Amino acid sequence: MDLTSVLARWPGVALPLIEAAQSRVAPYVRPTPLAPAPPLRGDLAPHLTLKLENLQVTGSFKARGAFNNLLQLDAAARERGIVAASGGNHGLAVAYAAHRLGLPATIFIPATAAPDRAARIAAWGVRLIQVGESYDEAEAAATRFARDEGLPNIHPFDSDGTLQGTGTLGLELLDDIPDADLVLIAIGGGGLIAGMSAALKQRRPDLRIVGVEPVGAPSMTASLEAGRVVALDRVRTIATTLAPRAVSQRTLDLTRACVDEIVLVTDTEMVAAMRWLWAECNQLVEPSGAAVIAALQTGRVDLIGCRRPVALVCGGNAAADPVFDAYASQISD
Amino acid sequence: MDLTSVLARWPGVALPLIEAAQSRVAPYVRPTPLAPAPPLRGDLAPHLTLKLENLQVTGSFKARGAFNNLLQLDAAARERGIVAASGGNHGLAVAYAAHRLGLPATIFIPATAAPDRAARIAAWGVRLIQVGESYDEAEAAATRFARDEGLPNIHPFDSDGTLQGTGTLGLELLDDIPDADLVLIAIGGGGLIAGMSAALKQRRPDLRIVGVEPVGAPSMTASLEAGRVVALDRVRTIATTLAPRAVSQRTLDLTRACVDEIVLVTDTEMVAAMRWLWAECNQLVEPSGAAVIAALQTGRVDLIGCRRPVALVCGGNAAADPVFDAYASQISD
Repeated sequence: MDLTSVLARWPGVALPLIEAAQSRVAPYVRPTPLAPAPPLRGDLAPHLTLKLENLQVTGSFKARGAFNNLLQLDAAARERGIVAASGGNHGLAVAYAAHRLGLPATIFIPATAAPDRAARIAAWGVRLIQVGESYDEAEAAATRFARDEGLPNIHPFDSDGTLQGTGTLGLELLDDIPDADLVLIAIGGGGLIAGMSAALKQRRPDLRIVGVEPVGAPSMTASLEAGRVVALDRVRTIATTLAPRAVSQRTLDLTRACVDEIVLVTDTEMVAAMRWLWAECNQLVEPSGAAVIAALQTGRVDLIGCRRPVALVCGGNAAADPVFDAYASQISD
Repeated sequence: MDLTSVLARWPGVALPLIEAAQSRVAPYVRPTPLAPAPPLRGDLAPHLTLKLENLQVTGSFKARGAFNNLLQLDAAARERGIVAASGGNHGLAVAYAAHRLGLPATIFIPATAAPDRAARIAAWGVRLIQVGESYDEAEAAATRFARDEGLPNIHPFDSDGTLQGTGTLGLELLDDIPDADLVLIAIGGGGLIAGMSAALKQRRPDLRIVGVEPVGAPSMTASLEAGRVVALDRVRTIATTLAPRAVSQRTLDLTRACVDEIVLVTDTEMVAAMRWLWAECNQLVEPSGAAVIAALQTGRVDLIGCRRPVALVCGGNAAADPVFDAYASQISD
């Protein structure tokens, strides 16, 4: 399907709706900065620009979709509140948005989630329910709860509101760098790349878009190859925010129409990229945020003829507690 | 002494010279981004803006002075190379600048410096000499070596070139935020606050400037109280980049003339501020970079009547290896 046909099927990501979302969320999210990586040791693409969405409020792009969804609820729905399930970043973003907008929220996360992640979500005054071994089990519990209580369930990647939110990041990127000719975007459930790519290609059909997935969780690659949404039997990656077992029909259709290629990266390559981002750019990011750098460092993206590549650093919520604990142990006062 | 008298004594920080430095270093350093902290839980000043100089090349403001010094060497001196001593950030900045400009460099750091810090400096192809127990001992060795070899010793804080470099950060901050009415700046040897404040006050005499020192290394406070440069018997703080035992006559004079007040923060408060910067702004910084946030969080800075406060996050080179090691231990490929 080409872009026109896909937009006929999924009209929620039409450009005017993404533009409306951009105005809607503007008071609540940050325009995130760029880091023009200066030519260093020739170890990466010249003229590479990083878009530091890890500096978004709550540390990831998820805040855009969260606010866009919540701001479209009517007064009665706002009063009753919302539900969301999350492995991490989406839950944090929805919790923060609910706090800012004064909505009650119930957030489901796996019982296995890291304690600091749970604490950060709970700190926004939401009701936090830890259930199940994985995101999928927490999601199932959230879906049941939302149905039983008659509350909206804010989906992490498969809804118009969420994709309009990620679309705002595409528009912002083109405002920042009008002559971008390549954009690298990580893929989990596909909500980020689907919304961003829809926005980017509606404005700039010539722009090349490269998706990046973990070798251990290639849900989009598998579905593209199968020609339909397939669920992986298992996922195995340290990039837990890129690890849903399946994408959705919506994100698959939009990715097929808008994304030019997908490359895979290993956990080892993502950790090396995390170290590079720290050493060269002083950005501590989670593995998913470093995936696009890994794709470049390993030479898996052909940059011939590319003049203005942009790597989207999508999230920064690494497990940083060991750093603070080490400093705290050295305190002399 | 008022500003005019101080400038007569230290003409190297006259505004036209700082402006010239700004043009000189521009091709080599980054204009660093701002992070407008959105109103969160009311735990900090409203309208606070962070200037993220931790995103400068090499992770701290030191790159500005390093380039400004090296770019003023003549061809013969460039060929022979330079010497610098450092506890960390200055050495890294000089090593990087020497690499970019093709100069031979010999960097002295204490034998006690963290291995990852030594590795990052050595990676720029410089000659690295680890000697002594402290910065003071490494500095003494560097001074002897520079004298014996007839090479310029690039001082971390006490030279016109270095202060013009930090002055460029003052000019950039006013370009970013013309209506700033309060700037918070950390103090180690005083090179950052002296150069920045000289630039800020020559452009905006009404601007209020607050310095921040560790309780365990109050070298500027002690010298201001004594009315002359005094060396502390001992320093004890985790903010090692704020811990020279003594400031210099130049940085003392400029601080006395330009800085309105100085507040002290403890190690415990700096670690709490590091956690806040991470949780709220996804910035991992070293203790010195968080000192200004600690000064605000503890309520030690009177913000009544202040409409546009700016906190300068001066450096980001925290010891982050434990984070990467933890991820590496979980890799499944």
